[in-house]
Amino acid sequence: MTNETPEPDAARGARGLPSHIARAAGSGALESRMVDVSEKPVTRREATAMAHVRFPRGVLAGLLADGGPKGPITEVSRTAGVMAAKRTADWIPLCHPLGLDAVEVEFEQKADDLLEIRCRAACTGRTGVEMEAMVGVAAAALTVYDMTKGIDHGIAIEGLRLVHKRGGRSGEWRA
Amino acid sequence: MTNETPEPDAARGARGLPSHIARAAGSGALESRMVDVSEKPVTRREATAMAHVRFPRGVLAGLLADGGPKGPITEVSRTAGVMAAKRTADWIPLCHPLGLDAVEVEFEQKADDLLEIRCRAACTGRTGVEMEAMVGVAAAALTVYDMTKGIDHGIAIEGLRLVHKRGGRSGEWRA
Amino acid sequence: MTNETPEPDAARGARGLPSHIARAAGSGALESRMVDVSEKPVTRREATAMAHVRFPRGVLAGLLADGGPKGPITEVSRTAGVMAAKRTADWIPLCHPLGLDAVEVEFEQKADDLLEIRCRAACTGRTGVEMEAMVGVAAAALTVYDMTKGIDHGIAIEGLRLVHKRGGRSGEWRA
Amino acid sequence: MTNETPEPDAARGARGLPSHIARAAGSGALESRMVDVSEKPVTRREATAMAHVRFPRGVLAGLLADGGPKGPITEVSRTAGVMAAKRTADWIPLCHPLGLDAVEVEFEQKADDLLEIRCRAACTGRTGVEMEAMVGVAAAALTVYDMTKGIDHGIAIEGLRLVHKRGGRSGEWRA
Amino acid sequence: MTNETPEPDAARGARGLPSHIARAAGSGALESRMVDVSEKPVTRREATAMAHVRFPRGVLAGLLADGGPKGPITEVSRTAGVMAAKRTADWIPLCHPLGLDAVEVEFEQKADDLLEIRCRAACTGRTGVEMEAMVGVAAAALTVYDMTKGIDHGIAIEGLRLVHKRGGRSGEWRA
Amino acid sequence: MTNETPEPDAARGARGLPSHIARAAGSGALESRMVDVSEKPVTRREATAMAHVRFPRGVLAGLLADGGPKGPITEVSRTAGVMAAKRTADWIPLCHPLGLDAVEVEFEQKADDLLEIRCRAACTGRTGVEMEAMVGVAAAALTVYDMTKGIDHGIAIEGLRLVHKRGGRSGEWRA
Repeated sequence: MTNETPEPDAARGARGLPSHIARAAGSGALESRMVDVSEKPVTRREATAMAHVRFPRGVLAGLLADGGPKGPITEVSRTAGVMAAKRTADWIPLCHPLGLDAVEVEFEQKADDLLEIRCRAACTGRTGVEMEAMVGVAAAALTVYDMTKGIDHGIAIEGLRLVHKRGGRSGEWRA
Repeated sequence: MTNETPEPDAARGARGLPSHIARAAGSGALESRMVDVSEKPVTRREATAMAHVRFPRGVLAGLLADGGPKGPITEVSRTAGVMAAKRTADWIPLCHPLGLDAVEVEFEQKADDLLEIRCRAACTGRTGVEMEAMVGVAAAALTVYDMTKGIDHGIAIEGLRLVHKRGGRSGEWRA
Repeated sequence: MTNETPEPDAARGARGLPSHIARAAGSGALESRMVDVSEKPVTRREATAMAHVRFPRGVLAGLLADGGPKGPITEVSRTAGVMAAKRTADWIPLCHPLGLDAVEVEFEQKADDLLEIRCRAACTGRTGVEMEAMVGVAAAALTVYDMTKGIDHGIAIEGLRLVHKRGGRSGEWRA
Repeated sequence: MTNETPEPDAARGARGLPSHIARAAGSGALESRMVDVSEKPVTRREATAMAHVRFPRGVLAGLLADGGPKGPITEVSRTAGVMAAKRTADWIPLCHPLGLDAVEVEFEQKADDLLEIRCRAACTGRTGVEMEAMVGVAAAALTVYDMTKGIDHGIAIEGLRLVHKRGGRSGEWRA
Repeated sequence: MTNETPEPDAARGARGLPSHIARAAGSGALESRMVDVSEKPVTRREATAMAHVRFPRGVLAGLLADGGPKGPITEVSRTAGVMAAKRTADWIPLCHPLGLDAVEVEFEQKADDLLEIRCRAACTGRTGVEMEAMVGVAAAALTVYDMTKGIDHGIAIEGLRLVHKRGGRSGEWRA
Repeated sequence: MTNETPEPDAARGARGLPSHIARAAGSGALESRMVDVSEKPVTRREATAMAHVRFPRGVLAGLLADGGPKGPITEVSRTAGVMAAKRTADWIPLCHPLGLDAVEVEFEQKADDLLEIRCRAACTGRTGVEMEAMVGVAAAALTVYDMTKGIDHGIAIEGLRLVHKRGGRSGEWRA
């Protein structure tokens, strides 16, 4: 499956979709590009993303209290999340390099087997920080996995997604 | 919720768990550490990880055929996945720096709204490449998100997890 | 040959050169330095650089149509160019770290055996983006080489140079 | 011009070429890939690459003796070349991460207006160091450009190419 | 010794200290955080840091004149300092990513056995550049050590500290 | 003071020094170089470095117990040290890129106002890990400074030096 060999009868565009989706899909480009943001105003932007790490039952509370095979989890994973968010443009090819005003990574046990991670990023710039928030959560969750996979390789990262964004032309958005 | 404030009566260890899990949880450390692998033999290691990206209905086939708002998706996302996998030790604090013999990133449309991404990594070394596979999938999926979030900010990354590993002391593992 | 052992009779300055060149050569410094741009105004800057990759005769059209030993060339090389341009200050010691508003990498077959690569970079800042454009072209061209050297190690990168810049005190310049 | 839109009658393969070139072009792949080197033996590899930087007449000797607008050229450019060579896998998407045994960057004035830069890289590994040598030369030449572009933006990098490689299955090669 | 196991009778706060120190110590947080600087004004910031490298007697003058086992010291170490300062947010987890207007690294022989290194950094932003100056000095001093440790592994870096800062809410500070 | 302007009567070599120092100083090179380690055997290497962070009196115990202005210190600083040690070849221009088998960062309060940081690094390779240990300590100490400079900008890093190395041709060394 590649994008190099479009089937001749591929349904172009997106029939029956909400119009903003159809329009966006209609702008499909033959070559990848970093969007030119020169003309966009500098404004305050903010975004929050979230993921869950699912553990085998009965392990998570002990991990949070006593640490796992590689030590206490949250400070190392938070550090990883913050550092990765700052380097989002290194990970994600078409992201703009941005200064960041704030990055926060939070952990919360949501159920016996579920650790929730949230990352909020903020900047003052010409483009949004959704990817910074997404990358921050991803790196924190991957670090949690790295520090606990010795317990069970099947620990999984679920529902990595944006939950909120604010600022910029498209305004506020909430999942 | 932090690991700095263990509840005094926290259940240490993990009662009622399979013994290998209880043992691992029992090795909880007060300080984080990169495991010393000096004494491990150099062997061939391999790991495969997977994630799904879930799109709003009716968009994915068009995206794959015609590209999205930032252009064709798979080659850029594959490149992002391969590059991130090679730098896993930069993103994940307690991972060992490793040479890699191979990294592969594959995309497959699994349903009308579901894109599956797989990353296989291989090395010849003293420690496994699970994290390289996980990081490669994560970066590819995040790049897919970045290149399509203009269509819908609610596109989500689901089920980021290891599916297979081989080599090393703990041998073969399959999800 | 080193700059540590200037010959005593070295012709200082540059006789017979246009005066702006003579002046610049006259400002030779004994210690390297990153120029202090604090006092420069923030303005819109843009630069375009170019290089050619020369192939053995009869190969290029097939490579562009069918891909080379490592796969399709342009999307991977474009991604490499964009990512490298964003990290120009990492590669080039005395470059200022800059936010970038845009990076574009374009490929065009100019002759039977000649692939032209262009990179345009733009920022809003205190210093120019010439190096970002040059680095973007270089990384894209090197990636083309990497993806085709299996065909012929003698494939060469020629004429890597600036073609245009705009903005800043020295204004517009065209090769 | 993209590889996504192969002309229907594109001449596949490479008629009339030496057979090793025809074979390689015949292996064109639809998806990019990092070659799997797991089965290759660990051997000593070495490669040397070269480029020329062309200056306006009458400037180069003075630059080398007295330094340019940003200071003495060779030590900073050599440092840039060595550092970039070490991070080749960061620049070039499908390159394997490698330990390096040696990197050398040399400068020589070849004519009134021509500075030659050579980079030799060596490793003991499963894959060659051609790209390390090419990247080392490129970064050194780009740094020379950065440190002298204040004299003339038209200074150009010419003939960036491999001159020698040794080791590995394909053995010795000389330009 | 870890912060996970506070002794129950630890003297909280800092009795008998100047009040600004007591206040700061009083703001101890349970979770690490990158400070949110969104509300801070953009101003010109500057900072200078310093360190000494102490050599065995009788070596330093010769090293500076003739170079050490790895070559001339100051240009390579200055380059290392400038490059590291630009990437401060990569090394120091809770530092904000910043554009920089200037970085300078200076060397001075202060005694028979003492090399002084100073780094000045400047930016126009929402937060200070103390860490950029500190990181620049540290990287330059570590590079001096790397280039001379072949002479004596006991060469030491002493007194790495801030000497001056200017700009921002807390104004000017001098050691 | 630069190495470009050697005083004409500079005492070459190092009179009156232990012979191994005189020899090393005698090998002064006109151009910087990364040493070629191709011919060195692969052996187990280990090194430990140390630094002290000096605080104003009466602050350190509270910081360790309660955290500082940016949160708990040791886990974040340890993470910074481990991550920096892994990327030593990125910081230090003439260091070889190395795989690492182990990195450990330890903190100990040595006096009312003195925090000791130690970093041990180990690898199996052709060159030593002294710089990895030095860089790990430096990054951890700089992070401690970053997380506490809000209390007193005069906090200083002292005595950053190697304390032990083992392996390689020059064998064991202890400060």
